Amino acid sequence: MRIGVLCSGGDSPGMNAAIRGAVLRGVEVHGFEMVGFMDGWRGFHDGDTVPLDRLAVRGISPLGGVMLGTSRVPPFPDGVATPEALAAVRARMTELGIDAFLLIGGNGTQTVAQMLDDAGIPVVGVPKTIDNDLGGTDYTFGFDTAVSVAAEAIDRLRTTGESHRRCMVLEVMGRDAGWIALHAGMAGGAQLILLPEFPESVEQICEWVLSVRDRGRSSLVVVAEGFRPAGEADVVTRAGLDGFGRPRLGGVAEVLAPRIEERTGIETRATVLGHVQRGGSPTAFDRVLATRTGIAAADAANDGAWGTMAGLHGDRVELVPLEEAVGALKTVPAARYEEARLSFG
Amino acid sequence: MRIGVLCSGGDSPGMNAAIRGAVLRGVEVHGFEMVGFMDGWRGFHDGDTVPLDRLAVRGISPLGGVMLGTSRVPPFPDGVATPEALAAVRARMTELGIDAFLLIGGNGTQTVAQMLDDAGIPVVGVPKTIDNDLGGTDYTFGFDTAVSVAAEAIDRLRTTGESHRRCMVLEVMGRDAGWIALHAGMAGGAQLILLPEFPESVEQICEWVLSVRDRGRSSLVVVAEGFRPAGEADVVTRAGLDGFGRPRLGGVAEVLAPRIEERTGIETRATVLGHVQRGGSPTAFDRVLATRTGIAAADAANDGAWGTMAGLHGDRVELVPLEEAVGALKTVPAARYEEARLSFG
Amino acid sequence: MRIGVLCSGGDSPGMNAAIRGAVLRGVEVHGFEMVGFMDGWRGFHDGDTVPLDRLAVRGISPLGGVMLGTSRVPPFPDGVATPEALAAVRARMTELGIDAFLLIGGNGTQTVAQMLDDAGIPVVGVPKTIDNDLGGTDYTFGFDTAVSVAAEAIDRLRTTGESHRRCMVLEVMGRDAGWIALHAGMAGGAQLILLPEFPESVEQICEWVLSVRDRGRSSLVVVAEGFRPAGEADVVTRAGLDGFGRPRLGGVAEVLAPRIEERTGIETRATVLGHVQRGGSPTAFDRVLATRTGIAAADAANDGAWGTMAGLHGDRVELVPLEEAVGALKTVPAARYEEARLSFG
Amino acid sequence: MRIGVLCSGGDSPGMNAAIRGAVLRGVEVHGFEMVGFMDGWRGFHDGDTVPLDRLAVRGISPLGGVMLGTSRVPPFPDGVATPEALAAVRARMTELGIDAFLLIGGNGTQTVAQMLDDAGIPVVGVPKTIDNDLGGTDYTFGFDTAVSVAAEAIDRLRTTGESHRRCMVLEVMGRDAGWIALHAGMAGGAQLILLPEFPESVEQICEWVLSVRDRGRSSLVVVAEGFRPAGEADVVTRAGLDGFGRPRLGGVAEVLAPRIEERTGIETRATVLGHVQRGGSPTAFDRVLATRTGIAAADAANDGAWGTMAGLHGDRVELVPLEEAVGALKTVPAARYEEARLSFG
Repeated sequence: MRIGVLCSGGDSPGMNAAIRGAVLRGVEVHGFEMVGFMDGWRGFHDGDTVPLDRLAVRGISPLGGVMLGTSRVPPFPDGVATPEALAAVRARMTELGIDAFLLIGGNGTQTVAQMLDDAGIPVVGVPKTIDNDLGGTDYTFGFDTAVSVAAEAIDRLRTTGESHRRCMVLEVMGRDAGWIALHAGMAGGAQLILLPEFPESVEQICEWVLSVRDRGRSSLVVVAEGFRPAGEADVVTRAGLDGFGRPRLGGVAEVLAPRIEERTGIETRATVLGHVQRGGSPTAFDRVLATRTGIAAADAANDGAWGTMAGLHGDRVELVPLEEAVGALKTVPAARYEEARLSFG
Repeated sequence: MRIGVLCSGGDSPGMNAAIRGAVLRGVEVHGFEMVGFMDGWRGFHDGDTVPLDRLAVRGISPLGGVMLGTSRVPPFPDGVATPEALAAVRARMTELGIDAFLLIGGNGTQTVAQMLDDAGIPVVGVPKTIDNDLGGTDYTFGFDTAVSVAAEAIDRLRTTGESHRRCMVLEVMGRDAGWIALHAGMAGGAQLILLPEFPESVEQICEWVLSVRDRGRSSLVVVAEGFRPAGEADVVTRAGLDGFGRPRLGGVAEVLAPRIEERTGIETRATVLGHVQRGGSPTAFDRVLATRTGIAAADAANDGAWGTMAGLHGDRVELVPLEEAVGALKTVPAARYEEARLSFG
Repeated sequence: MRIGVLCSGGDSPGMNAAIRGAVLRGVEVHGFEMVGFMDGWRGFHDGDTVPLDRLAVRGISPLGGVMLGTSRVPPFPDGVATPEALAAVRARMTELGIDAFLLIGGNGTQTVAQMLDDAGIPVVGVPKTIDNDLGGTDYTFGFDTAVSVAAEAIDRLRTTGESHRRCMVLEVMGRDAGWIALHAGMAGGAQLILLPEFPESVEQICEWVLSVRDRGRSSLVVVAEGFRPAGEADVVTRAGLDGFGRPRLGGVAEVLAPRIEERTGIETRATVLGHVQRGGSPTAFDRVLATRTGIAAADAANDGAWGTMAGLHGDRVELVPLEEAVGALKTVPAARYEEARLSFG
Repeated sequence: MRIGVLCSGGDSPGMNAAIRGAVLRGVEVHGFEMVGFMDGWRGFHDGDTVPLDRLAVRGISPLGGVMLGTSRVPPFPDGVATPEALAAVRARMTELGIDAFLLIGGNGTQTVAQMLDDAGIPVVGVPKTIDNDLGGTDYTFGFDTAVSVAAEAIDRLRTTGESHRRCMVLEVMGRDAGWIALHAGMAGGAQLILLPEFPESVEQICEWVLSVRDRGRSSLVVVAEGFRPAGEADVVTRAGLDGFGRPRLGGVAEVLAPRIEERTGIETRATVLGHVQRGGSPTAFDRVLATRTGIAAADAANDGAWGTMAGLHGDRVELVPLEEAVGALKTVPAARYEEARLSFG
């Protein structure tokens, strides 16, 4: 069997470890032939491939980014799986001698995986997103690294905030789901955590900041990029459009900081952490999760368990049907937010 | 309600975060009065206590060690819960005005928790061990930090090993269970992982090291301190006796290295990582897990859910009966070892 | 002798280590009495002091920020050392029983130190700025930490840039001197380093980015916040005014990125690293430098070497007259920029 | 001109950055042809070479170890530069088309460099040793990384020590010179620093440990591997012989710990940090120093400044005659030890 591997969407620390796990297991144990497509579907369309064997994946687990590159190039014209588009995919598979796909990606990519599976094209999914907003798995690799980077930033910002008696606002990634903000905020002991799922008014935020000051402390506010103040969903930030033509979200910290300063009289500074959250060497947790996920995906291919995705459940990596993973985003439940807010607010 | 908090056994990064979580939730939300005993049961016996309130736990999450100190002093004379010993505990509780215990510790401590619960003394357990060998929870806090430290050591040793074409043997903690070695070895891409659960002969180990050399690489061997070569369970290392009078295990790497060198002719070096694995600032993962576990323990006390322990199951922290946690150690199952060995051996 | 210690200006990792070094040496070896002023000159004006002894500085070396707080409150009304202002300082010193000052700060603070010295008030300076733009010393503590944080950000951003074939622009601190950008860029292997001292046109920058692309690589551009494109010194960024009423410089990366993207057609992303550079635990280098500087300042006070500052020269910490330190900023010389540009451009 | 590059002796973080600096400067700016010898003089003897150009050194600065490998194979039979041995070197140079050497190494390697220079063979030295015991330069690259790793270990061990009220003994590298112990101990706030240069009796050590206990603290003792208790220079440790047939020094911590425990009654634990100090990604400081040193060496070759070594003096990298670098080891002067001991003892 000859399996094509590709990564699609934003990068996520652990992608190299996942590829390595899949290749060592697939090639050395199951006897597959494996090839990688460069830059996601771009490499598939252009026939830009690299052979994946033991040598190709040597020593790549600790490396950030992904050896194959990634892109947002869609598999189908206009992103729609028309019969013609699927026929074109099949023709290209024959041309390249590919029997099955191993697709590493987030919600968008696993939705594509399901479309291919629906059309009878053999595919296995490997979940990947720093945002942790994918169903069917407790955590996605990349998330722990992003949380670690954000928590370290909190540790650093806090000391500056307390030395200067300032309110520090840190913006972390999270367009629709606030997992990074929730975990990093809890790890760093943030006084305030603001999530896309739970809008709060600027007035309420300022009240909290003042009550923290009254306890003799400086506020460290962690805000997910997708948070919008209650009643101000259309607030405009400095960011432009992203690769999908959607308004980019970055910059809400820069909107909040001056408003907090003005209303509370407390000097306030914004930091937008940005891309440093999604690059660089993965944490040990993410390397292990990614490696095990890659291994499980190779085993799934060997067992013909097409249409599944390898997910973490407790301390086990298990296959779940793709439909469990895609569809609704996994957002932060109210109980988790209350847990954080009640205890630390 | 007045709750006494203590830590017992070896230290584990995250203990401060767990105390903070329990105190912020217990005092601020549930209205408990909470006190800490210094140095575990020593503080209970001596009445050496500190009040635990918001101020006392301020900013302690990122700190290693534990603000209360810890020790291996037993709660009962000779460690046996005789009626007299239990009566003494009850008398002391009355004297100190303590209604219930929150016990932070590993297998030994949770066994004590169960003894107290059996005797009708209100107690909630918080699991803690870097070894991850406790039942009733997917992971214990401290484990992720230990794995991270060990994985970083592998990253460092590997470059020296490859520059000098040496075999590097790294010994990590794990007396009876090889979890740290398994995860750190997988994260670091070790060529060989040796666990207490799966003895291998020196001959077999050397064959593997030679086959790695034949592939043009230098071996990085991770060995848990409790590993003993097959058929040599009584091998003597340099370590003496531990606090319980049991032979200390440290030093097996120093036994293996010269034997590998002699048999393979490959220059081999041993490193015993030791106590750096169990100290220092916890990872973000461990801080979150510890904080949530502390919160859940405070909630358990509020609900009168005595005789339980707060465990991680998937992404939820849930209460389990203490008997699920104690008793048999959670060791590495064969499937996990095979997964690592087959893919990377 | 009773010595008053204060920190002024922006915070810089290592301030706690410097205070600890000065106090352990001053109190334990020379027998001084030492007190700290909270929040810089604010604490002096308000008589807000803390005793500084062995216990007060216990364990503070690894901590970021500064135990005394810092502020930009000036010592003199309007910042001018009029005879009245100096008389007021002397009166306050008498009131507080202070014989001499130990002033920890950057250019502004050491200029104040010199004013006090000129007026015959005993003062010793301890240099501190992450920007490394102070004369009289090879390096200032805080700089190495800032460079480390920035270099780690480059390591992280590079992997994302290469996975997506993007140009990544990282903005680091450096209003007038580009030392952080120079060192972090060299450490991280940046393709382009843009410094305030050496304006380059956007056209030239884009040519370099394209030539990097033609070599098959993705550009990592490090830009100091004070850099302005040649001929565009008045370019407007999103930042407002700083604590001195001067326009804040932050945001030049966000001005450059879209212009690079537009002109080269290469997807380009900006990251403004911000305050994480100046907070958090100092590197070992900065802790040693700060500790030794603090010790040397205590020795200077003991020797009556007023009007001096403790500077690093090679591997020795030596006293220099304050006038060597202040006045002209230490900027990056052309040879250092050429070294970086010619070799890596 | 065709220049041969080799690394000899133990590895030291920064070697890759030094090679990259020399190659980018030498090949791209000066137009040299450059080749690397694999595994030090072994590659020279065997003609095992790799071409060194921009592509070969791409992205290697952050990597630990060294891309060329290193070994302790001597250039001359028996290490003696006899006329025959030198003639053989010249013959081999002609055979390989090598005009000059760039030798990266410590004391031993630079001594060889001087022998070659004395014989009229063109050679430039690049200093490298984690031990920092080489003359002619303020610091050698690798030292800052080793100190950072050791200081982080202290941060971790301290929390365990204080939680358990134990004395922790950390052994770091340093056979003849205690620089790593001195700097790491100062950075970590060690209570005791023991250096090869300044023997202290076990009795004196125990007195210090007890006085620390009397102040309510737990001792963190940093000991360089080459330290021997006063009057016990021949104390036997567990370590065997090194690559030169000299007794290895490792293990003095394990000799000291039980003796401290026995004499003071304070539970004491030893950690031997070992090879993790010399591997892994270099600090930003070491990357910059190594890069600049490599650049300076390429410039020296271009200027025909043979017989020199590139050293750091303040913030400048300058050439010094090889004889300044070799000969006497640079050890810790008494003033530096007193500075540390008096202040912190």
